[in-house]
Amino acid sequence: MTSPSIVTAAMLAIGDELLSGRTKDKNIGHLADMLTMVGIDLREVRIVADDEGAIVDAINALRSRYDHVFTSGGIGPTHDDITADAISKAFEVPCVHDAKAMELLAAMYERRGMEFTEARKRMARMPAGAAHIPNPVSTAPGFAIGNIYVMAGVPQVFQAMLDALLPTLKAGTPVQSRTVRSPYGEGVIGGPLTQVQKNHPETSIGSYPKFDGKSFSTDIVIRARDEALLAAAEAEVTAMIEAIGRSRQDD
Amino acid sequence: MTSPSIVTAAMLAIGDELLSGRTKDKNIGHLADMLTMVGIDLREVRIVADDEGAIVDAINALRSRYDHVFTSGGIGPTHDDITADAISKAFEVPCVHDAKAMELLAAMYERRGMEFTEARKRMARMPAGAAHIPNPVSTAPGFAIGNIYVMAGVPQVFQAMLDALLPTLKAGTPVQSRTVRSPYGEGVIGGPLTQVQKNHPETSIGSYPKFDGKSFSTDIVIRARDEALLAAAEAEVTAMIEAIGRSRQDD
Repeated sequence: MTSPSIVTAAMLAIGDELLSGRTKDKNIGHLADMLTMVGIDLREVRIVADDEGAIVDAINALRSRYDHVFTSGGIGPTHDDITADAISKAFEVPCVHDAKAMELLAAMYERRGMEFTEARKRMARMPAGAAHIPNPVSTAPGFAIGNIYVMAGVPQVFQAMLDALLPTLKAGTPVQSRTVRSPYGEGVIGGPLTQVQKNHPETSIGSYPKFDGKSFSTDIVIRARDEALLAAAEAEVTAMIEAIGRSRQDD
Repeated sequence: MTSPSIVTAAMLAIGDELLSGRTKDKNIGHLADMLTMVGIDLREVRIVADDEGAIVDAINALRSRYDHVFTSGGIGPTHDDITADAISKAFEVPCVHDAKAMELLAAMYERRGMEFTEARKRMARMPAGAAHIPNPVSTAPGFAIGNIYVMAGVPQVFQAMLDALLPTLKAGTPVQSRTVRSPYGEGVIGGPLTQVQKNHPETSIGSYPKFDGKSFSTDIVIRARDEALLAAAEAEVTAMIEAIGRSRQDD
Protein backbone atom coordinates (compact mmCIF):
# COMPACT_ATOMS: atom_id res chain seq x y z
CA MET A 1 0.00 0.00 0.00
CA THR A 2 1.54 3.30 -1.10
CA SER A 3 1.12 6.25 1.19
CA PRO A 4 -1.74 8.53 0.06
CA SER A 5 -0.85 12.08 -0.90
CA ILE A 6 -2.82 14.97 0.61
CA VAL A 7 -3.41 18.25 -1.19
CA THR A 8 -5.40 20.92 0.67
CA ALA A 9 -7.51 23.87 -0.45
CA ALA A 10 -9.62 26.76 0.77
CA MET A 11 -12.27 28.87 -0.93
CA LEU A 12 -12.98 32.58 -0.56
CA ALA A 13 -16.39 33.67 -1.87
CA ILE A 14 -16.53 37.46 -2.31
CA GLY A 15 -19.64 39.63 -2.46
CA ASP A 16 -21.97 41.81 -0.38
CA GLU A 17 -24.93 40.01 -1.98
CA LEU A 18 -23.96 36.68 -0.36
CA LEU A 19 -23.94 38.28 3.10
CA SER A 20 -27.20 40.22 2.67
CA GLY A 21 -29.05 37.08 1.57
CA ARG A 22 -29.90 38.59 -1.80
CA THR A 23 -27.93 35.87 -3.60
CA LYS A 24 -27.72 32.32 -2.31
CA ASP A 25 -24.25 30.97 -3.04
CA LYS A 26 -24.11 28.05 -5.47
CA ASN A 27 -20.34 27.92 -6.00
CA ILE A 28 -19.19 26.55 -2.63
CA GLY A 29 -21.11 23.28 -2.96
CA HIS A 30 -20.06 22.87 -6.59
CA LEU A 31 -16.38 23.46 -5.79
CA ALA A 32 -16.63 21.01 -2.86
CA ASP A 33 -18.05 18.31 -5.17
CA MET A 34 -15.42 18.86 -7.85
CA LEU A 35 -12.46 18.94 -5.43
CA THR A 36 -13.62 15.76 -3.70
CA MET A 37 -13.79 14.07 -7.09
CA VAL A 38 -10.23 14.98 -8.10
CA GLY A 39 -8.67 14.36 -4.67
CA ILE A 40 -8.16 17.85 -3.26
CA ASP A 41 -9.25 18.33 0.38
CA LEU A 42 -11.36 21.47 0.84
CA ARG A 43 -10.54 22.44 4.44
CA GLU A 44 -12.03 25.91 4.90
CA VAL A 45 -14.39 28.36 3.22
CA ARG A 46 -14.79 32.05 3.95
CA ILE A 47 -17.31 34.55 2.64
CA VAL A 48 -16.42 38.25 2.83
CA ALA A 49 -17.91 41.48 1.50
CA ASP A 50 -16.66 43.58 -1.43
CA ASP A 51 -14.24 45.22 1.00
CA GLU A 52 -10.57 45.49 0.11
CA GLY A 53 -9.25 45.06 3.65
CA ALA A 54 -11.41 42.01 4.29
CA ILE A 55 -10.35 40.36 1.00
CA VAL A 56 -6.64 41.07 1.55
CA ASP A 57 -6.73 39.72 5.12
CA ALA A 58 -8.55 36.56 4.08
CA ILE A 59 -6.28 35.91 1.09
CA ASN A 60 -3.14 36.34 3.17
CA ALA A 61 -4.48 34.06 5.92
CA LEU A 62 -5.51 31.33 3.49
CA ARG A 63 -2.69 31.29 0.95
CA SER A 64 -0.02 30.48 3.51
CA ARG A 65 -2.12 27.72 5.09
CA TYR A 66 -3.40 25.71 2.10
CA ASP A 67 -1.97 24.35 -1.17
CA HIS A 68 -4.66 25.98 -3.33
CA VAL A 69 -7.06 28.90 -2.75
CA PHE A 70 -10.06 29.40 -5.04
CA THR A 71 -12.03 32.65 -5.11
CA SER A 72 -15.41 33.53 -6.63
CA GLY A 73 -16.86 36.94 -7.40
CA GLY A 74 -15.89 40.56 -7.82
CA ILE A 75 -14.21 40.42 -11.25
CA GLY A 76 -16.90 42.11 -13.35
CA PRO A 77 -16.88 45.60 -14.87
CA THR A 78 -18.49 47.70 -12.13
CA HIS A 79 -17.19 49.84 -9.28
CA ASP A 80 -17.95 47.14 -6.68
CA ASP A 81 -15.78 44.58 -8.51
CA ILE A 82 -12.57 45.04 -6.55
CA THR A 83 -11.17 41.51 -6.36
CA ALA A 84 -8.34 42.14 -8.88
CA ASP A 85 -7.21 45.22 -6.90
CA ALA A 86 -7.38 43.39 -3.58
CA ILE A 87 -5.41 40.35 -4.83
CA SER A 88 -2.78 42.68 -6.33
CA LYS A 89 -2.50 44.42 -2.99
CA ALA A 90 -2.14 41.09 -1.15
CA PHE A 91 0.74 40.14 -3.50
CA GLU A 92 2.16 43.69 -3.49
CA VAL A 93 2.19 43.92 -7.30
CA PRO A 94 0.49 46.54 -9.52
CA CYS A 95 -3.00 45.84 -10.86
CA VAL A 96 -2.77 46.35 -14.64
CA HIS A 97 -4.87 46.07 -17.80
CA ASP A 98 -3.42 42.74 -19.00
CA ALA A 99 -2.41 43.04 -22.68
CA LYS A 100 -3.63 39.58 -23.72
CA ALA A 101 -6.95 40.05 -21.90
CA MET A 102 -7.40 43.45 -23.58
CA GLU A 103 -6.89 41.78 -26.98
CA LEU A 104 -9.36 38.96 -26.23
CA LEU A 105 -12.03 41.37 -25.03
CA ALA A 106 -11.47 43.93 -27.82
CA ALA A 107 -11.82 41.17 -30.43
CA MET A 108 -14.97 39.78 -28.80
CA TYR A 109 -16.72 43.17 -28.62
CA GLU A 110 -15.60 43.92 -32.20
CA ARG A 111 -17.21 40.65 -33.40
CA ARG A 112 -20.40 41.48 -31.53
CA GLY A 113 -20.46 45.08 -32.81
CA MET A 114 -20.35 46.41 -29.25
CA GLU A 115 -18.36 49.27 -27.80
CA PHE A 116 -15.33 48.29 -25.66
CA THR A 117 -16.23 50.71 -22.85
CA GLU A 118 -14.02 51.78 -19.96
CA ALA A 119 -16.17 49.61 -17.70
CA ARG A 120 -15.60 46.57 -19.90
CA LYS A 121 -11.87 47.28 -19.93
CA ARG A 122 -11.94 46.82 -16.13
CA MET A 123 -12.48 43.11 -16.80
CA ALA A 124 -8.95 42.92 -18.31
CA ARG A 125 -7.39 44.11 -15.05
CA MET A 126 -5.34 41.64 -13.01
CA PRO A 127 -2.16 41.55 -10.94
CA ALA A 128 0.91 42.05 -13.17
CA GLY A 129 2.32 38.66 -14.12
CA ALA A 130 -0.87 36.67 -13.44
CA ALA A 131 -1.78 33.76 -15.75
CA HIS A 132 -5.21 33.52 -17.39
CA ILE A 133 -7.97 31.11 -16.46
CA PRO A 134 -9.97 30.78 -19.70
CA ASN A 135 -13.64 31.81 -19.77
CA PRO A 136 -15.47 30.02 -22.61
CA VAL A 137 -18.81 31.55 -21.54
CA SER A 138 -18.21 35.28 -21.64
CA THR A 139 -14.51 35.70 -22.61
CA ALA A 140 -13.30 37.88 -19.70
CA PRO A 141 -10.67 35.63 -18.10
CA GLY A 142 -10.13 34.70 -14.50
CA PHE A 143 -6.54 34.63 -13.34
CA ALA A 144 -4.03 32.69 -11.28
CA ILE A 145 -1.24 34.20 -9.19
CA GLY A 146 0.83 32.12 -6.78
CA ASN A 147 -1.57 29.53 -5.38
CA ILE A 148 -4.65 31.78 -5.77
CA TYR A 149 -7.22 31.08 -8.53
CA VAL A 150 -9.60 33.97 -9.13
CA MET A 151 -12.90 33.12 -10.82
CA ALA A 152 -16.24 34.73 -11.56
CA GLY A 153 -19.23 34.70 -9.22
CA VAL A 154 -21.87 33.90 -11.86
CA PRO A 155 -22.23 30.12 -11.42
CA GLN A 156 -22.17 29.22 -15.13
CA VAL A 157 -18.92 31.14 -15.56
CA PHE A 158 -17.42 29.88 -12.28
CA GLN A 159 -18.11 26.29 -13.33
CA ALA A 160 -16.66 26.75 -16.83
CA MET A 161 -13.50 28.34 -15.41
CA LEU A 162 -13.13 25.55 -12.86
CA ASP A 163 -13.48 22.93 -15.62
CA ALA A 164 -10.58 24.60 -17.45
CA LEU A 165 -8.48 25.03 -14.31
CA LEU A 166 -8.81 21.75 -12.39
CA PRO A 167 -6.93 19.43 -14.79
CA THR A 168 -3.89 21.75 -14.48
CA LEU A 169 -3.67 21.55 -10.66
CA LYS A 170 -1.71 19.24 -8.41
CA ALA A 171 -4.19 16.85 -6.79
CA GLY A 172 -3.91 14.11 -4.20
CA THR A 173 -5.24 10.58 -3.79
CA PRO A 174 -9.02 10.92 -4.00
CA VAL A 175 -10.99 10.10 -0.88
CA GLN A 176 -13.54 7.39 -1.52
CA SER A 177 -16.74 7.21 0.43
CA ARG A 178 -19.54 4.77 1.15
CA THR A 179 -22.90 5.69 2.62
CA VAL A 180 -24.77 3.28 4.87
CA ARG A 181 -28.36 4.30 5.55
CA SER A 182 -29.55 3.77 9.11
CA PRO A 183 -33.27 3.73 9.91
CA TYR A 184 -32.33 4.73 13.45
CA GLY A 185 -31.55 8.25 14.64
CA GLU A 186 -28.19 9.34 15.97
CA GLY A 187 -29.36 8.83 19.55
CA VAL A 188 -29.58 5.08 18.91
CA ILE A 189 -26.45 4.58 16.81
CA GLY A 190 -24.20 7.19 18.42
CA GLY A 191 -22.74 4.93 21.14
CA PRO A 192 -21.94 1.87 18.99
CA LEU A 193 -20.74 4.07 16.11
CA THR A 194 -18.16 5.73 18.38
CA GLN A 195 -16.71 2.26 18.96
CA VAL A 196 -16.66 1.48 15.22
CA GLN A 197 -14.76 4.74 14.58
CA LYS A 198 -12.24 3.77 17.28
CA ASN A 199 -11.76 0.37 15.63
CA HIS A 200 -11.07 2.04 12.25
CA PRO A 201 -8.86 5.04 13.03
CA GLU A 202 -7.65 5.45 9.45
CA THR A 203 -11.15 6.05 8.16
CA SER A 204 -13.34 9.07 8.85
CA ILE A 205 -16.88 8.12 9.80
CA GLY A 206 -19.48 10.88 9.65
CA SER A 207 -23.05 10.69 10.79
CA TYR A 208 -25.70 12.91 9.20
CA PRO A 209 -29.16 13.12 10.71
CA LYS A 210 -32.15 13.45 8.46
CA PHE A 211 -35.45 14.75 9.74
CA ASP A 212 -38.65 14.09 7.78
CA GLY A 213 -40.86 16.26 10.00
CA LYS A 214 -41.66 13.34 12.32
CA SER A 215 -38.56 11.33 13.10
CA PHE A 216 -34.83 11.22 12.55
CA SER A 217 -32.90 8.69 10.49
CA THR A 218 -29.18 8.80 9.75
CA ASP A 219 -26.80 8.52 6.83
CA ILE A 220 -23.49 7.11 7.95
CA VAL A 221 -20.69 8.12 5.60
CA ILE A 222 -17.34 6.32 5.73
CA ARG A 223 -14.38 7.97 4.03
CA ALA A 224 -10.90 6.63 3.31
CA ARG A 225 -8.21 6.85 0.66
CA ASP A 226 -7.78 3.07 0.60
CA GLU A 227 -10.35 0.58 -0.69
CA ALA A 228 -9.56 -2.18 1.83
CA LEU A 229 -9.85 0.16 4.83
CA LEU A 230 -13.15 1.45 3.46
CA ALA A 231 -14.61 -2.03 2.93
CA ALA A 232 -13.63 -3.19 6.43
CA ALA A 233 -15.25 -0.19 8.12
CA GLU A 234 -18.35 -0.45 5.95
CA ALA A 235 -18.80 -4.12 6.90
CA GLU A 236 -18.60 -3.26 10.59
CA VAL A 237 -21.10 -0.38 10.28
CA THR A 238 -23.54 -2.65 8.41
CA ALA A 239 -23.14 -5.36 11.06
CA MET A 240 -23.69 -2.75 13.77
CA ILE A 241 -27.01 -1.66 12.26
CA GLU A 242 -28.18 -5.26 11.88
CA ALA A 243 -27.30 -5.90 15.52
CA ILE A 244 -29.29 -2.81 16.61
CA GLY A 245 -32.25 -4.09 14.58
CA ARG A 246 -32.12 -7.50 16.30
CA SER A 247 -31.81 -5.98 19.78
CA ARG A 248 -34.84 -3.74 19.15
CA GLN A 249 -36.97 -6.72 17.99
CA ASP A 250 -36.08 -8.42 21.27
CA ASP A 251 -37.43 -5.46 23.29
CA MET B 1 -32.16 62.39 11.05
CA THR B 2 -30.85 60.25 13.90
CA SER B 3 -27.59 58.45 13.38
CA PRO B 4 -28.15 54.81 12.43
CA SER B 5 -26.81 52.14 14.75
CA ILE B 6 -24.67 49.33 13.37
CA VAL B 7 -24.58 45.83 14.86
CA THR B 8 -22.26 43.30 13.21
CA ALA B 9 -22.24 39.51 13.03
CA ALA B 10 -20.36 36.53 11.66
CA MET B 11 -21.40 32.94 11.05
CA LEU B 12 -19.38 29.76 11.51
CA ALA B 13 -20.85 26.69 9.76
CA ILE B 14 -19.29 23.48 11.09
CA GLY B 15 -19.17 20.10 9.36
CA ASP B 16 -17.03 17.84 7.17
CA GLU B 17 -20.09 17.20 4.99
CA LEU B 18 -20.23 20.87 3.90
CA LEU B 19 -16.61 20.73 2.71
CA SER B 20 -16.90 17.37 0.94
CA GLY B 21 -19.94 18.56 -1.02
CA ARG B 22 -22.12 15.81 0.45
CA THR B 23 -24.41 18.39 2.05
CA LYS B 24 -25.16 21.73 0.41
CA ASP B 25 -25.46 24.36 3.15
CA LYS B 26 -28.88 25.96 3.52
CA ASN B 27 -28.29 27.84 6.77
CA ILE B 28 -25.97 30.61 5.58
CA GLY B 29 -28.48 32.09 3.14
CA HIS B 30 -31.31 31.79 5.66
CA LEU B 31 -29.31 33.50 8.41
CA ALA B 32 -28.29 36.24 5.96
CA ASP B 33 -31.95 36.90 5.08
CA MET B 34 -33.07 36.97 8.71
CA LEU B 35 -30.23 39.22 9.92
CA THR B 36 -30.82 41.68 7.09
CA MET B 37 -34.47 41.82 8.08
CA VAL B 38 -33.80 42.65 11.75
CA GLY B 39 -30.92 45.06 11.11
CA ILE B 40 -27.82 43.02 11.94
CA ASP B 41 -24.95 43.24 9.42
CA LEU B 42 -23.56 39.83 8.51
CA ARG B 43 -19.93 40.65 7.71
CA GLU B 44 -18.19 37.29 7.40
CA VAL B 45 -18.94 33.58 7.12
CA ARG B 46 -16.55 30.70 7.64
CA ILE B 47 -17.03 26.99 7.07
CA VAL B 48 -14.70 24.59 8.88
CA ALA B 49 -14.52 20.82 9.39
CA ASP B 50 -15.42 18.86 12.55
CA ASP B 51 -11.93 19.62 13.81
CA GLU B 52 -11.43 21.02 17.30
CA GLY B 53 -8.43 23.20 16.45
CA ALA B 54 -10.14 24.69 13.40
CA ILE B 55 -13.32 25.46 15.37
CA VAL B 56 -11.45 27.02 18.30
CA ASP B 57 -9.31 29.20 16.02
CA ALA B 58 -12.32 30.42 14.04
CA ILE B 59 -14.41 31.14 17.15
CA ASN B 60 -11.61 33.11 18.78
CA ALA B 61 -10.96 35.11 15.60
CA LEU B 62 -14.64 35.94 15.09
CA ARG B 63 -15.89 36.60 18.62
CA SER B 64 -13.48 39.47 19.22
CA ARG B 65 -14.26 41.06 15.87
CA TYR B 66 -18.07 41.02 15.67
CA ASP B 67 -20.99 41.77 18.00
CA HIS B 68 -22.67 38.39 17.43
CA VAL B 69 -21.35 35.03 16.16
CA PHE B 70 -23.80 32.32 15.04
CA THR B 71 -22.73 28.71 14.55
CA SER B 72 -24.47 25.76 12.87
CA GLY B 73 -23.73 22.07 13.17
CA GLY B 74 -21.92 19.57 15.35
CA ILE B 75 -24.26 19.43 18.37
CA GLY B 76 -25.85 16.01 17.78
CA PRO B 77 -25.25 12.78 19.70
CA THR B 78 -22.42 11.16 17.71
CA HIS B 79 -18.63 11.10 18.05
CA ASP B 80 -18.16 13.66 15.25
CA ASP B 81 -20.35 16.21 17.08
CA ILE B 82 -17.61 18.16 18.84
CA THR B 83 -18.90 21.74 18.73
CA ALA B 84 -19.76 21.90 22.47
CA ASP B 85 -16.26 20.69 23.39
CA ALA B 86 -14.59 23.13 21.01
CA ILE B 87 -16.61 26.14 22.24
CA SER B 88 -15.86 25.20 25.86
CA LYS B 89 -12.17 25.05 24.97
CA ALA B 90 -12.33 28.47 23.28
CA PHE B 91 -13.89 29.94 26.45
CA GLU B 92 -11.63 27.87 28.74
CA VAL B 93 -14.56 26.48 30.74
CA PRO B 94 -15.47 22.82 31.33
CA CYS B 95 -17.92 21.10 28.97
CA VAL B 96 -20.63 19.59 31.19
CA HIS B 97 -23.92 17.70 30.98
CA ASP B 98 -26.20 20.69 31.66
CA ALA B 99 -28.71 19.78 34.38
CA LYS B 100 -31.69 21.55 32.79
CA ALA B 101 -30.94 20.05 29.37
CA MET B 102 -30.65 16.57 30.93
CA GLU B 103 -34.13 17.05 32.50
CA LEU B 104 -35.68 18.24 29.23
CA LEU B 105 -34.22 15.35 27.26
CA ALA B 106 -34.97 12.70 29.93
CA ALA B 107 -38.63 13.84 30.05
CA MET B 108 -38.91 13.83 26.24
CA TYR B 109 -37.51 10.31 25.86
CA GLU B 110 -39.68 9.15 28.76
CA ARG B 111 -42.81 10.51 27.01
CA ARG B 112 -41.79 8.81 23.77
CA GLY B 113 -40.96 5.53 25.53
CA MET B 114 -37.39 5.68 24.29
CA GLU B 115 -34.16 4.93 26.10
CA PHE B 116 -32.08 7.96 27.17
CA THR B 117 -28.83 6.49 25.83
CA GLU B 118 -25.31 7.73 26.54
CA ALA B 119 -25.23 9.06 22.95
CA ARG B 120 -28.43 11.04 23.53
CA LYS B 121 -27.00 12.42 26.78
CA ARG B 122 -24.21 13.97 24.67
CA MET B 123 -26.83 16.41 23.38
CA ALA B 124 -27.12 17.91 26.89
CA ARG B 125 -23.44 18.83 26.91
CA MET B 126 -22.51 22.51 26.76
CA PRO B 127 -19.97 24.91 28.28
CA ALA B 128 -20.62 25.38 32.01
CA GLY B 129 -22.74 28.50 32.51
CA ALA B 130 -24.15 28.63 28.98
CA ALA B 131 -27.78 29.69 28.43
CA HIS B 132 -30.21 27.57 26.42
CA ILE B 133 -31.51 28.33 22.95
CA PRO B 134 -34.87 26.50 22.84
CA ASN B 135 -35.43 23.76 20.26
CA PRO B 136 -39.16 23.30 19.62
CA VAL B 137 -38.48 20.71 16.90
CA SER B 138 -36.45 18.04 18.64
CA THR B 139 -35.94 19.32 22.24
CA ALA B 140 -32.11 19.17 22.45
CA PRO B 141 -31.25 22.83 23.06
CA GLY B 142 -28.67 25.02 21.40
CA PHE B 143 -26.75 27.32 23.69
CA ALA B 144 -25.38 30.83 24.06
CA ILE B 145 -22.12 31.76 25.75
CA GLY B 146 -20.67 35.27 25.54
CA ASN B 147 -21.58 36.53 22.09
CA ILE B 148 -21.62 33.01 20.53
CA TYR B 149 -24.91 31.34 19.60
CA VAL B 150 -24.59 27.62 18.92
CA MET B 151 -27.32 26.04 16.84
CA ALA B 152 -28.06 22.79 15.03
CA GLY B 153 -27.04 22.02 11.45
CA VAL B 154 -30.34 20.42 10.39
CA PRO B 155 -32.06 23.36 8.65
CA GLN B 156 -35.49 22.89 10.26
CA VAL B 157 -33.90 22.93 13.71
CA PHE B 158 -31.49 25.77 12.88
CA GLN B 159 -34.40 27.90 11.68
CA ALA B 160 -36.55 27.17 14.74
CA MET B 161 -33.68 28.00 17.09
CA LEU B 162 -32.97 31.23 15.21
CA ASP B 163 -36.65 32.22 15.45
CA ALA B 164 -36.43 31.82 19.24
CA LEU B 165 -33.08 33.60 19.50
CA LEU B 166 -33.34 36.63 17.22
CA PRO B 167 -35.93 38.66 19.18
CA THR B 168 -33.60 38.52 22.21
CA LEU B 169 -30.58 40.03 20.43
CA LYS B 170 -29.39 43.59 20.14
CA ALA B 171 -30.04 44.73 16.57
CA GLY B 172 -29.29 47.88 14.61
CA THR B 173 -31.17 50.10 12.20
CA PRO B 174 -32.26 47.80 9.37
CA VAL B 175 -30.76 48.45 5.97
CA GLN B 176 -33.41 49.02 3.37
CA SER B 177 -32.86 48.13 -0.25
CA ARG B 178 -34.35 48.84 -3.65
CA THR B 179 -33.64 46.83 -6.77
CA VAL B 180 -33.64 48.49 -10.18
CA ARG B 181 -33.58 46.03 -13.08
CA SER B 182 -31.34 47.00 -15.97
CA PRO B 183 -31.79 45.33 -19.37
CA TYR B 184 -28.15 46.20 -20.07
CA GLY B 185 -25.13 44.25 -18.90
CA GLU B 186 -22.53 45.55 -16.50
CA GLY B 187 -20.25 46.53 -19.40
CA VAL B 188 -22.80 49.14 -20.47
CA ILE B 189 -23.85 50.48 -17.08
CA GLY B 190 -20.53 50.14 -15.22
CA GLY B 191 -19.14 53.57 -16.13
CA PRO B 192 -22.23 55.69 -15.41
CA LEU B 193 -23.03 53.64 -12.29
CA THR B 194 -19.61 54.42 -10.81
CA GLN B 195 -20.54 58.11 -11.06
CA VAL B 196 -23.94 57.51 -9.40
CA GLN B 197 -22.21 55.73 -6.50
CA LYS B 198 -19.82 58.69 -6.14
CA ASN B 199 -22.80 61.09 -6.03
CA HIS B 200 -24.43 59.02 -3.26
CA PRO B 201 -21.61 58.06 -0.88
CA GLU B 202 -23.93 57.21 2.01
CA THR B 203 -25.64 54.47 0.03
CA SER B 204 -24.13 51.19 -1.09
CA ILE B 205 -24.88 50.39 -4.72
CA GLY B 206 -24.29 46.83 -5.84
CA SER B 207 -24.50 45.48 -9.34
CA TYR B 208 -25.40 41.83 -9.94
CA PRO B 209 -25.05 40.35 -13.42
CA LYS B 210 -27.55 37.79 -14.60
CA PHE B 211 -26.80 35.46 -17.47
CA ASP B 212 -29.63 33.66 -19.26
CA GLY B 213 -27.34 31.54 -21.46
CA LYS B 214 -27.21 34.17 -24.20
CA SER B 215 -26.74 37.63 -22.76
CA PHE B 216 -26.20 39.50 -19.51
CA SER B 217 -28.62 41.82 -17.77
CA THR B 218 -28.10 43.43 -14.37
CA ASP B 219 -29.90 43.93 -11.09
CA ILE B 220 -28.78 47.15 -9.44
CA VAL B 221 -29.35 47.04 -5.69
CA ILE B 222 -29.23 50.25 -3.65
CA ARG B 223 -28.89 49.94 0.12
CA ALA B 224 -29.17 52.59 2.82
CA ARG B 225 -30.40 52.96 6.38
CA ASP B 226 -32.31 56.14 5.53
CA GLU B 227 -35.38 56.32 3.29
CA ALA B 228 -34.57 59.74 1.77
CA LEU B 229 -31.03 58.72 0.81
CA LEU B 230 -32.40 55.54 -0.72
CA ALA B 231 -35.04 57.34 -2.78
CA ALA B 232 -32.57 59.92 -4.12
CA ALA B 233 -30.10 57.26 -5.28
CA GLU B 234 -32.88 55.12 -6.76
CA ALA B 235 -34.14 58.09 -8.80
CA GLU B 236 -30.68 58.73 -10.20
CA VAL B 237 -30.15 55.06 -11.11
CA THR B 238 -33.51 54.94 -12.89
CA ALA B 239 -32.70 58.16 -14.77
CA MET B 240 -29.31 56.70 -15.72
CA ILE B 241 -30.91 53.60 -17.27
CA GLU B 242 -33.43 55.71 -19.19
CA ALA B 243 -30.58 57.88 -20.52
CA ILE B 244 -28.68 54.77 -21.65
CA GLY B 245 -31.82 53.56 -23.44
CA ARG B 246 -32.19 56.88 -25.29
CA SER B 247 -28.51 56.98 -26.29
CA ARG B 248 -28.73 53.43 -27.69
CA GLN B 249 -31.83 54.28 -29.76
CA ASP B 250 -29.83 57.17 -31.25
CA ASP B 251 -27.04 54.82 -32.39
